[in-house]
Amino acid sequence: MNTHIVKTYGDELDQLSAEVVLMGGLAEAQVAEAVEAVARRDVALAQSVVARDHKLDELEKDVERKCIRLIALRQPMADDLRKTVAAMKLATALERTGDLAKNIAKRSIVISEAEPMTPLTRSIERMGKLVSSRLRDVLDAYKSGKVDLAQSVWSSDTEVDEHYNALFRELLTYMMGDPRTISACTHLLFMAKNLERIGDYATNMAEHINYELTGEDYVESRPKASNLDQ
Amino acid sequence: MNTHIVKTYGDELDQLSAEVVLMGGLAEAQVAEAVEAVARRDVALAQSVVARDHKLDELEKDVERKCIRLIALRQPMADDLRKTVAAMKLATALERTGDLAKNIAKRSIVISEAEPMTPLTRSIERMGKLVSSRLRDVLDAYKSGKVDLAQSVWSSDTEVDEHYNALFRELLTYMMGDPRTISACTHLLFMAKNLERIGDYATNMAEHINYELTGEDYVESRPKASNLDQ
Repeated sequence: MNTHIVKTYGDELDQLSAEVVLMGGLAEAQVAEAVEAVARRDVALAQSVVARDHKLDELEKDVERKCIRLIALRQPMADDLRKTVAAMKLATALERTGDLAKNIAKRSIVISEAEPMTPLTRSIERMGKLVSSRLRDVLDAYKSGKVDLAQSVWSSDTEVDEHYNALFRELLTYMMGDPRTISACTHLLFMAKNLERIGDYATNMAEHINYELTGEDYVESRPKASNLDQ
Repeated sequence: MNTHIVKTYGDELDQLSAEVVLMGGLAEAQVAEAVEAVARRDVALAQSVVARDHKLDELEKDVERKCIRLIALRQPMADDLRKTVAAMKLATALERTGDLAKNIAKRSIVISEAEPMTPLTRSIERMGKLVSSRLRDVLDAYKSGKVDLAQSVWSSDTEVDEHYNALFRELLTYMMGDPRTISACTHLLFMAKNLERIGDYATNMAEHINYELTGEDYVESRPKASNLDQ
């Protein structure tokens, strides 16, 4: 037997989850700091978010490689196969979350040159905090294996959509009131959209965790406050 | 041996590719028709795009299930493993492409109630045609196994970004010139962004196909006309 695979199967699965948890912590920090960079007009902080994104890319590739190797060599069945597939799906969602945080950070650098739009950036900050708390909850559900926590993230999906819709209207009003702000406001619009998409990833992750833990897909369709997205 | 797996390995791989090709054809049609619905203000066409999206969702799930089963039961190595993983990645990208087409279709229904903005919807149509042709090329590369075709899609990525940037400026100018159009224009802005993301998925698919065929990752980083995205 190859010495590289003498580790037990359980060890390999544990290592995989640990790597996903590590990715989750990083992604959560990237989102929180990107939003802080917007609120504080902090270019240096935004740049450090951008510079750090590659770590999530590398970790995702590593998790994927390990999952495929594990499926091929260990042929996991039932629970273990679900765990492996969930790890792969969560890694993808967390990598995409990181990309969206990086995009928010980049846009914050661009608008740091425009006049401050404090009421709007405050709204971005509030929406960012809500989305971060959903990410934290979903990662806690993953770490602790608490299916009810995953399900509560899943069923409170409309909250982020409502925030997004309110912020969208606020942005439209602001732009119409002062068309010189349109260019900067479009960046805020995309930031809000990015946060909404991060919220969607949190919901998707909750679905994957629920499936991992119960083996069941949700039957009812996901609640949505806006019918324009997904 | 279980009668369910008496098919040869090669047959299973072929069936997998055929399913991905089918998804590709559907996704391409969804994008083309969504853009046509915008250009012609055709609500019925938009509704049929929305109604058809679930097919891509179902096919993606089916491809994924088959890939995992194949990896577990056949333990493919080298070329065959790359083929299997590429099928899974392409299916995900095509499902996401379908989601974005659906979103364009939904937005076209909303703006069909506003005044026509013909110069802008023409620009969306032109960008849509460009993105559709990239999708077509990348699917041809997949079907024919032509690595040079995949690589040419990959290296012409900046074209879509340039279109997007031009359209973005055009939209800003239009909104500033007539703030009453801001609300409808934000829908066009998101349509343009969706098309840009479909272009990104085409580029990602080109990368997966290149990897499938050559076993090599691209070393150089992807050309981008805009540094705001990804």
